[in-house]
Amino acid sequence: MAQLLSPPLKDDLDIVIPTIRNLDFLEMWRPFFQPYHLIIVQDGDPTKKIRVPEGFDYELYNRNDVNRVLGPKANCISFKDSACRCFGFLVSKKKYIFTIDDDCFVAKDPSGKEINALAQHIENLLAPSTPFFFNTLYDPFREGADFVRGYPFSLREGVPTAISHGLWLNIPDYDAPTQLVKPRERNTRYVDAVMAIPKGTLFPMCGMNLAFDRELIGPAMYFGLMGDGQPIGRYDDMWAGWCAKVICDHLKLGVKTGLPYIWHSKASNPFVNLKKEYKGIYWQEDIIPFFQNVVLPKECTTVQKCYIELSKQVKEKLGPLDPYFQKLGDAMLTWIEAWEDINSPAKTAPSQANGAKKDESSTKQK
Amino acid sequence: MAQLLSPPLKDDLDIVIPTIRNLDFLEMWRPFFQPYHLIIVQDGDPTKKIRVPEGFDYELYNRNDVNRVLGPKANCISFKDSACRCFGFLVSKKKYIFTIDDDCFVAKDPSGKEINALAQHIENLLAPSTPFFFNTLYDPFREGADFVRGYPFSLREGVPTAISHGLWLNIPDYDAPTQLVKPRERNTRYVDAVMAIPKGTLFPMCGMNLAFDRELIGPAMYFGLMGDGQPIGRYDDMWAGWCAKVICDHLKLGVKTGLPYIWHSKASNPFVNLKKEYKGIYWQEDIIPFFQNVVLPKECTTVQKCYIELSKQVKEKLGPLDPYFQKLGDAMLTWIEAWEDINSPAKTAPSQANGAKKDESSTKQK
Repeated sequence: MAQLLSPPLKDDLDIVIPTIRNLDFLEMWRPFFQPYHLIIVQDGDPTKKIRVPEGFDYELYNRNDVNRVLGPKANCISFKDSACRCFGFLVSKKKYIFTIDDDCFVAKDPSGKEINALAQHIENLLAPSTPFFFNTLYDPFREGADFVRGYPFSLREGVPTAISHGLWLNIPDYDAPTQLVKPRERNTRYVDAVMAIPKGTLFPMCGMNLAFDRELIGPAMYFGLMGDGQPIGRYDDMWAGWCAKVICDHLKLGVKTGLPYIWHSKASNPFVNLKKEYKGIYWQEDIIPFFQNVVLPKECTTVQKCYIELSKQVKEKLGPLDPYFQKLGDAMLTWIEAWEDINSPAKTAPSQANGAKKDESSTKQK
Repeated sequence: MAQLLSPPLKDDLDIVIPTIRNLDFLEMWRPFFQPYHLIIVQDGDPTKKIRVPEGFDYELYNRNDVNRVLGPKANCISFKDSACRCFGFLVSKKKYIFTIDDDCFVAKDPSGKEINALAQHIENLLAPSTPFFFNTLYDPFREGADFVRGYPFSLREGVPTAISHGLWLNIPDYDAPTQLVKPRERNTRYVDAVMAIPKGTLFPMCGMNLAFDRELIGPAMYFGLMGDGQPIGRYDDMWAGWCAKVICDHLKLGVKTGLPYIWHSKASNPFVNLKKEYKGIYWQEDIIPFFQNVVLPKECTTVQKCYIELSKQVKEKLGPLDPYFQKLGDAMLTWIEAWEDINSPAKTAPSQANGAKKDESSTKQK
C-alpha cells in the first residue's frame, strides 16, 4: 500500500529549473515536487545567492560550477539565456527529466482540481506513442479511449515515448510580433487531449513545461548557443525541438504533446523579445525546410551518432546562411563530447565519478 | 440583421443521408437542418417507402433512381452498404456537402448546450488549414488561439480546407475486434479542439459525421465497392479517406479533424461487423503502406487527374493482393466518368441539365 502511494519514478527523475531569481514559485508546487530531486541551473551573475524554499532536495549550479565541471567545453553552454537549462540535463544521473520555468504555476482543470503536471508527464512518457498513423480519438492508451476503426493492427503496439510536451493556460507561448499584436490574449481553452506528433511533422517545442526520457533522447536535448554573445535568443527550445524530432523520427521514438497544462503567469517583454527573436524569425524560414528535408543515414543508430551527423549537415547546409551556424555546429559537437565525458559508463563508475560528484556536492545544499 | 441570422451557406450546401429506414432522427436535427436541402440515398429494397418528417426540403434516390441516372455506370455505386452515400455527392449541385448517419443525434457540449454540428463543420471548412507544421495550441484560426512562438511566418496563411472530420460522443467508432473486447466502452471525453492533420499522415476517416468542399475534393470522395456482392464492408469511408488524404497532400489542401461531436446512439452488431471487416483488417496492412508511399506526378493538377492516376496504381500495386482491387480500380475510373458526365459544365448548362433535373424532380417530395 505504501508502495502504491509512493510518488511515481521518485528515484528515476530529476526536475531541472533554470533561473535568475529566488525560487518562491516552488511553494505552490511543493505537494507535487517535494519528493523529487531538483537540479537548479543559476543563470547570470554567479555571486548572486538564489533562495530555495526549505525542504526541497536540490543541487544548484552557477556559471562558475558550469565552468569547473566542463572546463573548456563550457563554451557550449549558453549564458544569460534559459538555454543554460541543458547543463542540468547533462549532469543528471536519472532516466527521466522534467524541466519547468520559474514563472509557471499549478493550473486547474475545468473541474477546479489542481493539475499535477509532473504525474501527467510521467503517464505520457510511460505509455507508448503512435506516430505512424493518426488516431482521431487522440491518445489510444488513455482510459476510455482506444484505436478507432481503420487503425492498422500492426501499428497498435506503438513505439517508446521519448518526449512529453506540455501546454500553458493563461499566457500563451507567442512570439514577439504576436505578443505585440495581441497583448491581451490569454489561453483559456483546456483541451483534454494528449497526442503523438506524427512522423515527419515538425513542431515548435517549448521548454517551459517539458519532460523527456534522458536515456532515449537526452543527447539531442541541447538548447544551442543563445543569449550573451550570440546573435539570437528565445530559439533554444525550438532548436532542441527540431533536432530531437528528426532524430526521434529516424530512431522510431515518439513525441507527445497536449496535457498537462501549467499556469504561465507572466508574459515577457515583447520589445525585448523582438530583439532576441529577430534573427530567429528570419532564419527559421530556411532552418525549417532544412530540418524537413534532413535525411539521417542508416548507420546512425544512436542519438549521439545522429546528433554528430546533424551537426555536420547544419554546418554544411545552414553555414552559408550565417557564420553563426558554423559556431553552432561546433558547439553541437562539443556538447556531445561533454555528454560522453560525463555520461560514459567509465566516467560514472564509482571510482571515477568522484570528480563530477564533488562538483555536485560542493553546491549541494540540503 | 436578417442576413446575419440566415443559416450559413444555406444555398451552397447539401446534407447527404444514406438510410434504410424512416428518418425520424431528423426531428432532433430540425432546428439546425431544416433550412438546408437534403439528398437522401435509400439503400436496399427500392420498393420500401421511407418516411421523411414534414417540412424538410429533400430529394430521395433509391436503387432504381441510381440505375436510371447512371445507366451502366451505376455498377460503381455500392448496394446494401452506406457506401451508397457517395451517389448523393455525385448528384449534388452544391459547393459543400455534409453527410451524417441516421443513428447520429445532437450531442451536448460540457456546458449542456446542444451542438450545432453543421455550423461547426462550416466554420472548419471556411477557415484555412495548416498541414505543413504542427501548431501546439491546435487550430490557430479559432477565437482565442493563434500560432505559437516558432511557427514559421511563411506558413501562417495556411491552405484551403477540403475536409472537416467530426467525432462522436457515446458509441465510439471502433472496429469489430475492439467492440467485442470493450462492449461497454463509451466516449465521454469532449476534446475542445480542431486540428489540421499534418501533410504525409494518413488517418481513419469516418463517414458518420463528415463535411467537405465538393469543388475542391468531391471527385476523390468515392466510397468504393462494398456490401452486396463484394468481399468487404465497413471500409468505404476508410477508402475514401486514404484516397482523399493523399490527393489533398498532393494538391496542398487541408484536412481537419476534431469538433464537432455528434451523439452516436447505437453500436452496430460486432459479429456482423467482424464478417464485413475481416478482409479489410487483413488487407489494410498492405493498403496503408501503399498509400503511405503513393507518389502522384506533377502533371496531376486536378482531383480527377490524381484519382485516375491513383486508380492505375491501385490496380498495379494492390491488384496482386486480390482480384478485388482490379475491380475496385475499374470502379474508380467509372466513378470519375460518372462524375464528369453529371458535373461537367456542358452537362450542367441549363439546356442539358434537365435530364438530371428530371431524375431528381421525379423523386423530389416537398
